[in-house]
Amino acid sequence: MVKDAKDVKEVKAPKSEQTRTLILETALRLFQERGYDKTTMRAIAQEAGVSVGNAYYYFTNKEHLVQGFYDRLAAEHAAAVQPVLDGDEDLAVRMRGVLLTWLDVAEPYHRFAAQFFKNAADPESPLSPFSAESVAAREAAISIHRRCLDGSDTKTDPELAELLPQLMWLIQMGLVLYWVYDRTEHTARSRRLVERAAPIGARAIALSRFRVLRPLVRQIHDVLEEFLPGAARPTGREPSGEPGQGPSRSG
Amino acid sequence: MVKDAKDVKEVKAPKSEQTRTLILETALRLFQERGYDKTTMRAIAQEAGVSVGNAYYYFTNKEHLVQGFYDRLAAEHAAAVQPVLDGDEDLAVRMRGVLLTWLDVAEPYHRFAAQFFKNAADPESPLSPFSAESVAAREAAISIHRRCLDGSDTKTDPELAELLPQLMWLIQMGLVLYWVYDRTEHTARSRRLVERAAPIGARAIALSRFRVLRPLVRQIHDVLEEFLPGAARPTGREPSGEPGQGPSRSG
Repeated sequence: MVKDAKDVKEVKAPKSEQTRTLILETALRLFQERGYDKTTMRAIAQEAGVSVGNAYYYFTNKEHLVQGFYDRLAAEHAAAVQPVLDGDEDLAVRMRGVLLTWLDVAEPYHRFAAQFFKNAADPESPLSPFSAESVAAREAAISIHRRCLDGSDTKTDPELAELLPQLMWLIQMGLVLYWVYDRTEHTARSRRLVERAAPIGARAIALSRFRVLRPLVRQIHDVLEEFLPGAARPTGREPSGEPGQGPSRSG
Repeated sequence: MVKDAKDVKEVKAPKSEQTRTLILETALRLFQERGYDKTTMRAIAQEAGVSVGNAYYYFTNKEHLVQGFYDRLAAEHAAAVQPVLDGDEDLAVRMRGVLLTWLDVAEPYHRFAAQFFKNAADPESPLSPFSAESVAAREAAISIHRRCLDGSDTKTDPELAELLPQLMWLIQMGLVLYWVYDRTEHTARSRRLVERAAPIGARAIALSRFRVLRPLVRQIHDVLEEFLPGAARPTGREPSGEPGQGPSRSG
């Protein structure tokens, strides 16, 4: 698939795009072979056959290369997940398919994911999936969850339309965290977690329409709106709490 | 409070316990002053006025010192949280108090928490809060959540008695992760998150008794039982799923 994409680019993409792709693919290969920390921009440039100055022109630093990796991963996931999104309308099956496909796509990078995660975990790092720099990859991932939900036969509250895909993405981030720690062969344990958790997520989403849960759903909505990056825009309803004041007592 | 604890130890504790405490306190001070990565066992021994061999006798490595830090933090939290556990019976107020008290107790260590977290995040690290090595600190933390719940006026399902405190601890770990990333003054943002999330947690626990939620609660119970370290023991009920088989479809 990577090869095909490259072939297409060789016909259509301008030279600069070709060079950018070459540098990124070389970097990803070296990250896998040598590890992220041990791979320098100099080594990447040398291996790609470009000048160091040229490499820096396309990617100002290694972090920027990782953003390119995030974008690539998101694009590969979007392509690979299409059969799932076009398939079964059962939400649990769809959520399971979306997450298992992500594990498939990410598997080749698992070996360096752990050391790599140390950098992404730094509070000041642009590599954090929550950073402003990661917005493109994040939006791409959230849109997959939106299509997963929209194509299902589960009825959801229109008020939660913006929020649920973000929440599903947050669950995916939890899975990624678990996956980084996963040392089982072919990350079998992460796959098992998806098998088990997808029906729970689907059921919780289906239940979110129930009247008895409405106050809870509102509270969750408000706190996610406040704390998630690029959070859901208010959807015109009355605010259910006064931000900036003390904690509301749960009765 | 640290000073009082030390005074007591000077009267009662045997020499070996005094030495152990001295080494641990010296290490924590150096971690704060110089950072975790830059502090060597040699420097700790020197600063504590003991031989390097002696330091290694009590703590086989820096990781072991961090386990001592976890235990200390758990003990300080247990002491500081007592007024909360003896106070208001409202579950949201109690959960809020437990978590805010943890933020108070942990605040002095926040500066080195970020770099420190990089080590704890390593999949192979005994410093992970989920590791076998961290079992003592984990059990201590879970028991605080158990007392938080048991002393509240919220009625809960006896079947969930083992599980809920573990779940509350898992939420605490989520808070710790957020707190590590938090760069606001006095980790104000983390405090705000506690104010907002505690009522949600309390409400969710109160709702977990509702009949309509029973299948969801069972599923969550089963998956936590499978994936949480030292998970809740089965409580005699019939299993609600067949472990080891494929995913169960949520209807």
